[in-house]
Amino acid sequence: MGMNMSEKILAKHAGLPEVHPGQLITCHLDMVLANDITAPPSIAKFEEIGRPVFDPEKIALVPDHFQPAKDIKSAGLAKIVRDFAHKHKIVNYFEQGRVGIEHVILPEKGLVGPGMLTIGADSHTCTYGAVNGFSTGVGSTDLGMAMATGKAWFKVPEAINVHLTGKKPANITGKDVILTLIGKIGVDGALYQSLEFTGEGVAELSMTDRLTIANMAIEAGAKNGIFPYDAITEAYVKGRVKKPYEPVEADSDAVYARTVEIDLSALTPVVAFPHLPGNTKPVKDIEEPIAIDQVVIGSCTNGRLEDLAIAAKIFEGHVVHPRVRCIVIPGSQAVYKEAMHKGYIDTFIDAGCAVSTPTCGPCLGGYMGIMTAGEKCVSTTNRNFRGRMGHVDSEVYLAGPQTAAASAILGRIAVPEEVE
Amino acid sequence: MGMNMSEKILAKHAGLPEVHPGQLITCHLDMVLANDITAPPSIAKFEEIGRPVFDPEKIALVPDHFQPAKDIKSAGLAKIVRDFAHKHKIVNYFEQGRVGIEHVILPEKGLVGPGMLTIGADSHTCTYGAVNGFSTGVGSTDLGMAMATGKAWFKVPEAINVHLTGKKPANITGKDVILTLIGKIGVDGALYQSLEFTGEGVAELSMTDRLTIANMAIEAGAKNGIFPYDAITEAYVKGRVKKPYEPVEADSDAVYARTVEIDLSALTPVVAFPHLPGNTKPVKDIEEPIAIDQVVIGSCTNGRLEDLAIAAKIFEGHVVHPRVRCIVIPGSQAVYKEAMHKGYIDTFIDAGCAVSTPTCGPCLGGYMGIMTAGEKCVSTTNRNFRGRMGHVDSEVYLAGPQTAAASAILGRIAVPEEVE
Repeated sequence: MGMNMSEKILAKHAGLPEVHPGQLITCHLDMVLANDITAPPSIAKFEEIGRPVFDPEKIALVPDHFQPAKDIKSAGLAKIVRDFAHKHKIVNYFEQGRVGIEHVILPEKGLVGPGMLTIGADSHTCTYGAVNGFSTGVGSTDLGMAMATGKAWFKVPEAINVHLTGKKPANITGKDVILTLIGKIGVDGALYQSLEFTGEGVAELSMTDRLTIANMAIEAGAKNGIFPYDAITEAYVKGRVKKPYEPVEADSDAVYARTVEIDLSALTPVVAFPHLPGNTKPVKDIEEPIAIDQVVIGSCTNGRLEDLAIAAKIFEGHVVHPRVRCIVIPGSQAVYKEAMHKGYIDTFIDAGCAVSTPTCGPCLGGYMGIMTAGEKCVSTTNRNFRGRMGHVDSEVYLAGPQTAAASAILGRIAVPEEVE
Repeated sequence: MGMNMSEKILAKHAGLPEVHPGQLITCHLDMVLANDITAPPSIAKFEEIGRPVFDPEKIALVPDHFQPAKDIKSAGLAKIVRDFAHKHKIVNYFEQGRVGIEHVILPEKGLVGPGMLTIGADSHTCTYGAVNGFSTGVGSTDLGMAMATGKAWFKVPEAINVHLTGKKPANITGKDVILTLIGKIGVDGALYQSLEFTGEGVAELSMTDRLTIANMAIEAGAKNGIFPYDAITEAYVKGRVKKPYEPVEADSDAVYARTVEIDLSALTPVVAFPHLPGNTKPVKDIEEPIAIDQVVIGSCTNGRLEDLAIAAKIFEGHVVHPRVRCIVIPGSQAVYKEAMHKGYIDTFIDAGCAVSTPTCGPCLGGYMGIMTAGEKCVSTTNRNFRGRMGHVDSEVYLAGPQTAAASAILGRIAVPEEVE
């Protein structure tokens, strides 16, 4: 019986010829990640164990959530991470404000790649499935253990075959694909399962699209999301991933728990209504205009150059609606610089957007755009749980960068075609 | 008996031929300013009075302190200001994240000018003395009254003649001038007095230098600080200040309480040690190296293009010390754009600095660079009171942008000459 992509990566890292759904295995890890919120408890667990770090090159520490420090407590958390990183000579410690958001910079710097196995004490660690790796979020205890041992246990997940067909329309982004999928299967539709993307539609998706889609696998409850290795993957990882890597391909007789079909050509821009990423609705089906107060463009989900390019193109010659605040947050300093050189930052500022240094900030209610009661935000982030971006009586509508930009201009949830 | 500059402005706005120190007068105001922290209580007072605003063109509301909102409370404060601004059609309401920091944008947009009288519910409102105006900070109650009446009461201050002579060395900035002055006379050295800058040394000071100096008049306890109108003022305000303005000049027989002499040619770069702006010490006299954790470059004191140019020049070809975080905050979107076009933002990012959207942020312990216990920051901001930038056991060392940049590179308090 053949194996799917996730099974192949897990089997290899467990040193087993094959694995099956439900099997409990222990795997060697290629990368272990934590941020300023999750690293401190992981470090505490690590110190209980009392061993050296398993490999200072295979631990990535990225203080990005509440950094540059939003308050004294955040500064204290960052200091714990910094002191640990210096003490243990962690090679991939990225000082706050210098590099960017964890899930943007790990792929960007080639620290995750095809066939690799990564865990991170952050639920959106599943992002790296975009580059044909297996990656998933874990708790801080497991992460602390992993920093000492280089290993973690897994229950091999069943897989859902997300079969993509058709040509992607120009006004559709990866965000529309994943929101549509979550809307279809629900926020628990893939509970402890792997989302394996297959079909000729995969070639329609840019690496940015794939990173956005894999990033939100967890929002359907999935253990991970994973894309096949193709020419687009190769173009992205070549030269970037310095360590040897081995792409994985699903066997033709791989077994899936079920198949979900998505015809890309039938997609229209969608928004996930409060308070679940699965409350997906096509923008065109919104009957009464929904006035908004804020727009956030950025985050580990949609903070890459292509996302900013899409938004900038829509803002050109337009300004943010007088009643709306629009905050643009490049995902990394590299994205920021490139966006600056391409004139996008000029466009954003001319439109009346605030451009922040890379930070998770508002996405998880950290800072840089928190809402008070009754406010509504269209956001390119990944979660719209109640109170996620501030007050329990504020609302987050998840969308792609094109919808976010158009909504900022019109002051209500809208698609670019409505911007005159 | 002649009048000095402050007396002339106050007399004119009181409709009196002359005024004398100690006299209580009521003046008509040219501009009335509040921010996201001070406007809400001002608005509450205003609403008690129950009148319309005296002039929607002469009120400036700038939500800049904790905006884009750092938390739910800040978002609520911003909403109060926003709703008020829209209800009363305040012409100079500057939505958060769109324009910049109050004391940078009011001069930049020409809303304050020579001979004009401005009050603001912010102690650093004294900044506008740089453009030959009288401006001072007031409490929120007075500000609320002023929004309704367009008037405020003043006790005419005595003046100190700060007589500037000599040629300013190239490595000296306005910040060194004002810190040296405060070090000389003390943080209460000009209590309820006017600092009137005179002498041929004035011509040595750029508008940026003057804005920095006037900004910190309050740090010597002064009611205001004011510069004469000269070619540099004219070049700055011409075309920028749209309303008619009338420069003021001190009479040759103007009376001063005392004269303080400053020989610019004798100045060296200085730092104000914790926890008072008057604890000034020349950097060259620091015997034991003082290791630092953070550097902040920006604020209403030093967030103008010239400040960023000075810092960028020093960062060129250098990187921030591995142990230091450096946060650069342009004072306005206009400064940000210009700095971007001149390549300064590239230089900052290449050096490892975080570049923030314009905000007061860390200066007053808001966000975007708060310190935990035991940390030290060299900052171009204006106040280093205990706990100002975070934990009560953190320390702020005030300095000019050249000293801040050099310190960021070397990881200790240093001057540019020490950077190899």
